[in-house]
Amino acid sequence: MRDAPVEGVYLSGVYDLQEIYAHHFAPFADRVRIRLPKDIEDPSKITFAVTWLPTADAFDAFPNVQLACSIAAGVDSIVTCPSLPDHVHVTRVQDDNQADLMAGFAAWHVIWHHRNMGFYLDRQAKGVWEHQNFDRAPSPKDYTVGILGYGLMGKAIGTAVAAMGFPVVAAVRSAPSDPAPAGVTFETGEGSIQRVAARSSALINVLPLTEATEGILNRQLFDVMPKGAVLIQLGRGRHLVDADLDAALDSGQLAGASLDVFHVEPLAEDHPWWRDPRILVTPHQASDSSRALMATQVTEAACSVARGETPAHTVDKRRGY
Amino acid sequence: MRDAPVEGVYLSGVYDLQEIYAHHFAPFADRVRIRLPKDIEDPSKITFAVTWLPTADAFDAFPNVQLACSIAAGVDSIVTCPSLPDHVHVTRVQDDNQADLMAGFAAWHVIWHHRNMGFYLDRQAKGVWEHQNFDRAPSPKDYTVGILGYGLMGKAIGTAVAAMGFPVVAAVRSAPSDPAPAGVTFETGEGSIQRVAARSSALINVLPLTEATEGILNRQLFDVMPKGAVLIQLGRGRHLVDADLDAALDSGQLAGASLDVFHVEPLAEDHPWWRDPRILVTPHQASDSSRALMATQVTEAACSVARGETPAHTVDKRRGY
Ligand SMILES: NC(=O)c1ccc[n+]([C@@H]2O[C@H](COP(=O)([O-])OP(=O)(O)OC[C@H]3O[C@@H](n4cnc5c(N)ncnc54)[C@H](OP(=O)(O)O)[C@@H]3O)[C@@H](O)[C@H]2O)c1
Ligand SMILES: NC(=O)c1ccc[n+]([C@@H]2O[C@H](COP(=O)([O-])OP(=O)(O)OC[C@H]3O[C@@H](n4cnc5c(N)ncnc54)[C@H](OP(=O)(O)O)[C@@H]3O)[C@@H](O)[C@H]2O)c1
Repeated sequence: MRDAPVEGVYLSGVYDLQEIYAHHFAPFADRVRIRLPKDIEDPSKITFAVTWLPTADAFDAFPNVQLACSIAAGVDSIVTCPSLPDHVHVTRVQDDNQADLMAGFAAWHVIWHHRNMGFYLDRQAKGVWEHQNFDRAPSPKDYTVGILGYGLMGKAIGTAVAAMGFPVVAAVRSAPSDPAPAGVTFETGEGSIQRVAARSSALINVLPLTEATEGILNRQLFDVMPKGAVLIQLGRGRHLVDADLDAALDSGQLAGASLDVFHVEPLAEDHPWWRDPRILVTPHQASDSSRALMATQVTEAACSVARGETPAHTVDKRRGY
Repeated sequence: MRDAPVEGVYLSGVYDLQEIYAHHFAPFADRVRIRLPKDIEDPSKITFAVTWLPTADAFDAFPNVQLACSIAAGVDSIVTCPSLPDHVHVTRVQDDNQADLMAGFAAWHVIWHHRNMGFYLDRQAKGVWEHQNFDRAPSPKDYTVGILGYGLMGKAIGTAVAAMGFPVVAAVRSAPSDPAPAGVTFETGEGSIQRVAARSSALINVLPLTEATEGILNRQLFDVMPKGAVLIQLGRGRHLVDADLDAALDSGQLAGASLDVFHVEPLAEDHPWWRDPRILVTPHQASDSSRALMATQVTEAACSVARGETPAHTVDKRRGY
């Protein structure tokens, strides 16, 4: 006789995770059984949570939870949840394919700004054949792309952007031991983020949101960037000091921005960024993890913990990622 | 005493090449002197031409031309020029940086189609936060990108697109001897173009225009492509059978196209492609060679020929590229 399935709960203050994910867990019904809080008779049986943007008290009702699985790469909403007990393991989805999606998305925005692609869409809308002054687009080798957050996402972005001929420079605490992809170099240690920004014609943010990184995209950083540089913000809304971006765009210090994440999501209907021609707004869709892979990794993690093992893809809760 | 500068002529039926290029040749004034036909007193002194879209009889007036330098990568308008004498060397610009520009441009269009980026631009224009169904975008690894014309441009495109996680397959006569970039494979020999098309979710054309490649983007090719695939056409207008593209889009066999080159350029103001939401039109600006590098390479070539040597970057006129 097989063991009974490990019991889990969906915890989100925003999404109906059951509706989105239940059918991806269906193939694993003999190993995990996950329900919404309202459908659970005996909360003491629940040993893990599938979660994203949990409410502050979400974990209080489930005293035996040992594992909180983020459905996404970013875990900031989970590790900062006040009701998350200290001993609970937190895992993230680790999806190389998501990193490729992120890389393509970031590369697209680099070219959008570098080649001023909006010019062509505008001319097509008007039905006008018009050449753009090519001297305007610097040679890729003179257009350095900076990356903040050289992790799963940042590495994939660096590889893709360097392969288009752009010099890439990433801010890291210490130089990675594995060989860097061709065209990728590093600024290391104290002040590395400022030194990357100072070299970047386009600066891409994929940092995790932590105490150390909150508000890091601010006036001081924009001021050291080359005049007319652009920001590609794919991390978390709270990395950015919104008013500082507006000021940098208004002064011409920055020429444009691509924003996928915001302090408040959805971005308010009446927010001026929707109608700002210098800004490209996307609705937090830079990349998504594969739902099937997420279900596989959550199932593995839940079963590991049930066997008393440490699950794969855990994050360091003190670091915050 | 230095030799007098080698004398050349600008030959184009379309562009005022002197206006565009003269100041790039200024640094080489002691080595080459290039003028418009109307300004040349003694045509017999002219030994080379800087040319692009020459008129049919352009070379007749200059009996001692030994070299025709294309200002661009494509030489089709020059090698097919009726007045070009057999013995004249034809050179092209060979600009690795142009290949990087091309790679970024092609990569941008791959992501445009793969991620349906137009959705976001449309929603921003409406001020609407709306998620796109992610299951719609296949994993990059399930979205093969085909390349026709694996030369200077095709190789750079392949490297860039593969670095975003897409499998890349290129049609080649025989497998290149230098190692392929990670993620790039080949279809070789007879029928390779059809076999590449049959595997391609997105098919990128950067073939040179020759007798063998004219009209190669046609109904038979579209019919073997996976249903819903897209065409990214960056070669020459005459590679494409326009009516076959329209039919393939109307039947749903192809889902979209990016077109940078056309039978008649500029594309006519009343052409329906301007207003076709399935088609992205750009005005033959996928990439441009560096004007400074062009001037350097032309100067070198003209001086080589004056010394009786064969210039670098010559094309095979019989092959046509
Ligand atoms: N917009 C979207 O759709 C989307 C999708 C996925 C992810 N994201 C965001 O992207 C973030 C990164 O994802 P990931 O999968 O790449 O995470 P990851 O693999 O954990 O990588 C994070 C990287 O950031 C570095 N880092 C952390 N704090 C730093 C600091 N203070 N200074 C410099 N570097 C620092 C880490 O360096 P060390 O290794 O040296 O610690 C690590 O390399 C997520 O947390 C999420 O916020 C957004
Ligand atoms: N839209 C734009 O802005 C723009 C800009 C630059 C170039 N272009 C176009 O792109 C073309 C390619 O430029 P390039 O610099 O890459 O030229 P290239 O270096 O000469 O490469 C051409 C490649 O096409 C291959 N080829 C030629 N005929 C073929 C055939 N019948 N079947 C299969 N492969 C064939 C050649 O293969 P082999 O080596 O085996 O002969 C070669 O690898 C130009 O001719 C031009 O038309 C467009």
